[in-house]
Amino acid sequence: MSETLADIGEFGLIDRIHKLLQKESALALGVTLGIGDDSASFQPRPGYEILVTCDCLVAGQHFLPDFITPLDLGRRAMVVNISDIGAMGGRPLYALVSLGLKTDTSVADVEAIYRGFIMELNPFEASIVGGNITKTDDALFIDITLIGEVEQGKLMLRSNAKVDDAILVTGYPGQAATGLQLLSHSKSTEGLREHRLVCAHTTPSHRAREGQAIAHSGFATAMIDTSDGFLGDLGHICQSSGVGAVLIQEKLPVNEDLRNAAAELKLDPYKLVLQESDDYELIITCPPDNVTQIRSAIAAVSDVPVTEVGRITDSVGDIQLTLPNGTHRHVIPSGWNHFSK
Amino acid sequence: MSETLADIGEFGLIDRIHKLLQKESALALGVTLGIGDDSASFQPRPGYEILVTCDCLVAGQHFLPDFITPLDLGRRAMVVNISDIGAMGGRPLYALVSLGLKTDTSVADVEAIYRGFIMELNPFEASIVGGNITKTDDALFIDITLIGEVEQGKLMLRSNAKVDDAILVTGYPGQAATGLQLLSHSKSTEGLREHRLVCAHTTPSHRAREGQAIAHSGFATAMIDTSDGFLGDLGHICQSSGVGAVLIQEKLPVNEDLRNAAAELKLDPYKLVLQESDDYELIITCPPDNVTQIRSAIAAVSDVPVTEVGRITDSVGDIQLTLPNGTHRHVIPSGWNHFSK
Repeated sequence: MSETLADIGEFGLIDRIHKLLQKESALALGVTLGIGDDSASFQPRPGYEILVTCDCLVAGQHFLPDFITPLDLGRRAMVVNISDIGAMGGRPLYALVSLGLKTDTSVADVEAIYRGFIMELNPFEASIVGGNITKTDDALFIDITLIGEVEQGKLMLRSNAKVDDAILVTGYPGQAATGLQLLSHSKSTEGLREHRLVCAHTTPSHRAREGQAIAHSGFATAMIDTSDGFLGDLGHICQSSGVGAVLIQEKLPVNEDLRNAAAELKLDPYKLVLQESDDYELIITCPPDNVTQIRSAIAAVSDVPVTEVGRITDSVGDIQLTLPNGTHRHVIPSGWNHFSK
Repeated sequence: MSETLADIGEFGLIDRIHKLLQKESALALGVTLGIGDDSASFQPRPGYEILVTCDCLVAGQHFLPDFITPLDLGRRAMVVNISDIGAMGGRPLYALVSLGLKTDTSVADVEAIYRGFIMELNPFEASIVGGNITKTDDALFIDITLIGEVEQGKLMLRSNAKVDDAILVTGYPGQAATGLQLLSHSKSTEGLREHRLVCAHTTPSHRAREGQAIAHSGFATAMIDTSDGFLGDLGHICQSSGVGAVLIQEKLPVNEDLRNAAAELKLDPYKLVLQESDDYELIITCPPDNVTQIRSAIAAVSDVPVTEVGRITDSVGDIQLTLPNGTHRHVIPSGWNHFSK
């Protein structure tokens, strides 16, 4: 039988996590007091603003426990927060982790979740500075607060897109949700764990380095991550900026994986690109003359493809899709809505 | 039927909370971007360190839903975090709130929880800058990250108590747990909701203003809040500082409420003072010559009683209780351990 939380108790677990962090985790810049007191503390750098975000994963709601390993679960929970800091143009620095765990949870699983956190934080020399562990009799949850920094005046908002701006997107949105659709429509899940679209859901990538580079370049007007899906988050940009958008359907980035899955699922691949999906790509708007500079800024840190897919318009809140025959179709951003009937 | 989250959806709820905050909440100093983007941001003040803490309440584990109103629940969840910032000598500034809610939760209840947060934050001109709302099919949870500031060099640690220091405590520890014991031992709970000891559990006070004043004075060596109970947290000071302690039993602060409850429960009142209890009082250590200055610093901001209860010793990790007949008894700090068998 593997060791459980009941065997070592809350303080035993905290001690184990502390040792794991000391051994395997980077120590973030500026930390003046880490884990072990009532609060942690850090010394902010002059010339920087502090960014702060939090996101929570609940078993059964945000992930399927049978289809994700504890290590990947930890990675995923941290990636969704790193993505939020990156979408503001920031660099992640300090994480606080709040876990709701059952008494029969295995200690090795909790350690694997923490290794997942560390795996995502170490490349930024970011570290866990605090948190708490709570007993729950119900579904496991992971709530992370991530603190970062951004150069003063370089903060990238979703509310600053301008009419006639070009709309760019990184990577291939829609992959994660399509992966989930494959899982739920397949009679057998044999071999599906390794499917690239399923992996896009279980181990998503963030674009935080790209986001930092874009912000630093000063050539973009607005930026957001696609955690609510391409259309949902473009909708957030339009709503916050008081603008509209037109997208050219044939320019939407569809890769071979998505095209094959669309054929298998008998669905329109462009719908899959636009749908609600948590892919953590970036949508960027910029004056058309700045597209080349944005591409260069991204290429300097990453080989992710960047696709220009449309323009910002003055039709407030309206998003139109231009079809190959030249006609337009209104599309309605929905985004995730966890409490809808 | 009252309106539920299913009726207005996630974005409807976020909109309602946003409006509530705009109308009723203070706006904290330095916020450069509040709710509504991927992250919030703030400009730290020169000459200050940033403090950060998080604490989570889960229904059934940390509170009894039938014995706490949504407003009080919000207050309590915020107080436990304010207490952690205050115990470091800091001032609370920015909160991030992560809620796990069921689809059938009433919107009015969620608004009342937020009013509870605001009620505790407004006196500090602190405000909610972000968060997220998650659907859960299980027990409601509230996870709060609170960010504060402390003057550079004034951070109060638990690890700096010195041999021969005096040990002071604010207020009357043990009240909250005694209130819970009254609830669980009484045949009828009629009238118990208003009992002062039960209220000590449902609507605890923090000592953040006192903590700030103590830190600012520079006369204390160590400080901690009594969220794990008097003995549990004195144990944390001893462990972190590599010292021991001796307590004089007859000096322990017992008020009339606790004395009456002890008689009713047929328990030793001193045990009730020392027990695991979440009262959010402060334990302070300081050189004996500084006791008067500490008392003055606290009296300048508060009328909470301050009691000198013992001394720090060189018996590492050992806490002794001196009984009225002059004999000593070893006492073992336990503190909350949520996963113990």
